[in-house]
Amino acid sequence: MKSKKSSESFTIMNELVLPNDTNIFGNLMGGRLMYWMDIAAGMAAVKHCNAPAMTVSVDNLSFKNPIKLGNIVHIEAKVSRAFNTSMEIHLSVWGEDHEQQYNYKSNEAYFTFVALDPNRKPRPVPELIPETPEEIAIYDGALRRRQLRLILAGKMSPDDATELRSYFIKP
Amino acid sequence: MKSKKSSESFTIMNELVLPNDTNIFGNLMGGRLMYWMDIAAGMAAVKHCNAPAMTVSVDNLSFKNPIKLGNIVHIEAKVSRAFNTSMEIHLSVWGEDHEQQYNYKSNEAYFTFVALDPNRKPRPVPELIPETPEEIAIYDGALRRRQLRLILAGKMSPDDATELRSYFIKP
Amino acid sequence: MKSKKSSESFTIMNELVLPNDTNIFGNLMGGRLMYWMDIAAGMAAVKHCNAPAMTVSVDNLSFKNPIKLGNIVHIEAKVSRAFNTSMEIHLSVWGEDHEQQYNYKSNEAYFTFVALDPNRKPRPVPELIPETPEEIAIYDGALRRRQLRLILAGKMSPDDATELRSYFIKP
Amino acid sequence: MKSKKSSESFTIMNELVLPNDTNIFGNLMGGRLMYWMDIAAGMAAVKHCNAPAMTVSVDNLSFKNPIKLGNIVHIEAKVSRAFNTSMEIHLSVWGEDHEQQYNYKSNEAYFTFVALDPNRKPRPVPELIPETPEEIAIYDGALRRRQLRLILAGKMSPDDATELRSYFIKP
Amino acid sequence: MKSKKSSESFTIMNELVLPNDTNIFGNLMGGRLMYWMDIAAGMAAVKHCNAPAMTVSVDNLSFKNPIKLGNIVHIEAKVSRAFNTSMEIHLSVWGEDHEQQYNYKSNEAYFTFVALDPNRKPRPVPELIPETPEEIAIYDGALRRRQLRLILAGKMSPDDATELRSYFIKP
Amino acid sequence: MKSKKSSESFTIMNELVLPNDTNIFGNLMGGRLMYWMDIAAGMAAVKHCNAPAMTVSVDNLSFKNPIKLGNIVHIEAKVSRAFNTSMEIHLSVWGEDHEQQYNYKSNEAYFTFVALDPNRKPRPVPELIPETPEEIAIYDGALRRRQLRLILAGKMSPDDATELRSYFIKP
Repeated sequence: MKSKKSSESFTIMNELVLPNDTNIFGNLMGGRLMYWMDIAAGMAAVKHCNAPAMTVSVDNLSFKNPIKLGNIVHIEAKVSRAFNTSMEIHLSVWGEDHEQQYNYKSNEAYFTFVALDPNRKPRPVPELIPETPEEIAIYDGALRRRQLRLILAGKMSPDDATELRSYFIKP
Repeated sequence: MKSKKSSESFTIMNELVLPNDTNIFGNLMGGRLMYWMDIAAGMAAVKHCNAPAMTVSVDNLSFKNPIKLGNIVHIEAKVSRAFNTSMEIHLSVWGEDHEQQYNYKSNEAYFTFVALDPNRKPRPVPELIPETPEEIAIYDGALRRRQLRLILAGKMSPDDATELRSYFIKP
Repeated sequence: MKSKKSSESFTIMNELVLPNDTNIFGNLMGGRLMYWMDIAAGMAAVKHCNAPAMTVSVDNLSFKNPIKLGNIVHIEAKVSRAFNTSMEIHLSVWGEDHEQQYNYKSNEAYFTFVALDPNRKPRPVPELIPETPEEIAIYDGALRRRQLRLILAGKMSPDDATELRSYFIKP
Repeated sequence: MKSKKSSESFTIMNELVLPNDTNIFGNLMGGRLMYWMDIAAGMAAVKHCNAPAMTVSVDNLSFKNPIKLGNIVHIEAKVSRAFNTSMEIHLSVWGEDHEQQYNYKSNEAYFTFVALDPNRKPRPVPELIPETPEEIAIYDGALRRRQLRLILAGKMSPDDATELRSYFIKP
Repeated sequence: MKSKKSSESFTIMNELVLPNDTNIFGNLMGGRLMYWMDIAAGMAAVKHCNAPAMTVSVDNLSFKNPIKLGNIVHIEAKVSRAFNTSMEIHLSVWGEDHEQQYNYKSNEAYFTFVALDPNRKPRPVPELIPETPEEIAIYDGALRRRQLRLILAGKMSPDDATELRSYFIKP
Repeated sequence: MKSKKSSESFTIMNELVLPNDTNIFGNLMGGRLMYWMDIAAGMAAVKHCNAPAMTVSVDNLSFKNPIKLGNIVHIEAKVSRAFNTSMEIHLSVWGEDHEQQYNYKSNEAYFTFVALDPNRKPRPVPELIPETPEEIAIYDGALRRRQLRLILAGKMSPDDATELRSYFIKP
């Protein structure tokens, strides 16, 4: 299986915030945004593995600025690291107010997808090759995030999370 | 402001998985589930603070079992701890296949909401009183989860996360 | 086939009223509410019969109080009586305004569902055992409501509706 | 206020049954059909009273034939009688399978709407003049149906329902 | 295959403009209107050919008057000419404001659909017989519109578009 | 008002084809695609004029290849020419089947939007400066397309369409 670059799975999604997407203040609801982010992450995952893929986890998400009714949600997604059968996807989300010519960061996120074979069993995915400095930095942090996922899912003991420990405990 | 019990914000949501909620394998898409979880968490938050509330963050989420087309998504949400102006909401999600009489856990999650005054500024929320042993255990873990949120959002240094450190570093 | 209690099919549904659910006055449209009630009734029916089930009729419905944009629709449904292959489901619907801490009854309703086998033919359902005084009262009224349904559907002559007649004609 | 003919509020609605409207057997769900019927009835009501109108009740509904995925739902609605501030709307619903050249009746129904003034208070509506024999027959039955609605809503004693009693008790 | 009249495929669609269908000014978005027009045109096409049919092209569309939130979109569609395996459908769209008793034309349009056999290959459709003077005029213009479609799709040279040329070049 | 480049309004939209977007053959319905195209075109228009904008017309559209359930709809839009208060937007649409690693052109299209001031009156938009050879070719064809729009909307006589005539009549 041929390795793939991060840029090969790069996906842009732009969505218009409509009335039904908003709360009583006219701000985009977090759940609707996560719905779109999941679709964007899934597109990036499928571009990387050329197979159906399914969400397995979503890392800690923090919404910085509310996105307003009538504004555009701009999502960029690309695979940030591939493991055996799973892929970590990095997403950046902005709100765009083109009438005010004002763009603002909403959040960054990591989704993890698993590739599936026709029997719905995990199947191997191509290796991911990061290229830009930013891609490499994100690639390098993936092991730490993965350990955190495993600990939080109760599948790893904090004691075994060597990558993560060094992040919390400066020597 | 009178303190409130965890049970006062308890919210049940049951949703039927329809074709448009599913991927090519007929399994509920992660993003659609998060949309529903956000609505359920928001209902619990509003029951606690009796004011509009907005999603500020979602903790690490891990989907254990896919939920199938035609099955029921059963979500239970309640406020697990209140801070000054924000509330942590604990959610449990099950899939229910009543034809097969088979219920299965999908995931547990923590969403954080902030209460807003009419000018969209954060406003104080009532204190949360946990009652059952499970509620108390979840309440006690909230500080640790909060430190993790702050670190991951870049708002706290790992060195200051005393609650969290003791979780990772057994003496 | 083992009999079942009314409580075994008890189903709670909470939905948030969004802009697209409302009319020009910002009140929930009746049709949207009936859509949710049908889903809730269907869930209760499937819990009782453990088979696919299909709406066959809806009894007279009267909307008492409009439910407002941003409020919660709270629906409770449970099977109130089982016939040979069909089930009557009793629903209670409230609007909840948690900012104003004001809950209000919208309506009560009876939906009837039929259980289907894999060939889409009606199949027998378990008997229903009411327990609480309220469940028993509703159970007892089911024959009368059924006769009314049959008359209104042109499947029974008013002369044969002995249960119903005694309701209209006090001796 | 000038009286209006039944035909002046005549409204036709045709909807295509899409995947998300159907249950596990590919048949239109009852709730989705009621959603469309409510919209059609509301259009007929507004044509009659030229004011906003709101659903107040739905009479006993019985679904005769399931409507299949890909078929057309054909709804015809017109005001069948006007009361002081409310209107009874008569609906007929068919399924249309144009590939099989087969049309089938799904149900007939009566919805009641109230006209509202800008302060959301009931406002008078024009009188309704039926013209065809069918319209006249439906018009004549409206008092009986109204008494049944009032009794079922607990707003009238069966003893006072003279119109309805004569229907149940042949002399 | 028996020829069919234009009136046999006549289809009326009435839709209520809801919040999510509108832009920031509360006017129906063009794309939402085209969605409904496509459904209406498809219904007319299927009525004519009694087989599945698929959109192949949409002629130049011009929106004359915006349709407002809460108004009704009234669409009339019927097959205007049949070719070998394709059908041209003529649509007229009005906005209806029944509170103001004001109806206004939104646009007229031509959609072209192709009939499909079970292998998804084009299949012959019945000939179309126009009856009214208006139907005949529209029928006669169909060749000219078809040549324009073929030219704009790059499938015909302007030199060969004899029908169309005579429209642009008065002798 | 400062002129703007075509690239400044460039907008990418990627959408996943879900069950409710498809016809009986599992192919994307034309109307749903036009809905997305209209949103994408509107985003490009607003980026150019930094004001609300509304669809005024859609040029002849021809769907070349059906897009399948589960595939991605990839839309690219940018303003191709600005007139006084209106903008022509050029769109290219592809279907992407990443499992089969097969991308296919669906169509190209031109939408026209008008910019609106707060009173909903047309307002001037910046001039458009094309840069690439492709942008310049599309820019140059805009007058011809505009004349065709005006003729088809009955606002220009074919005799006055000098740009368009030279396209149909080679000297």
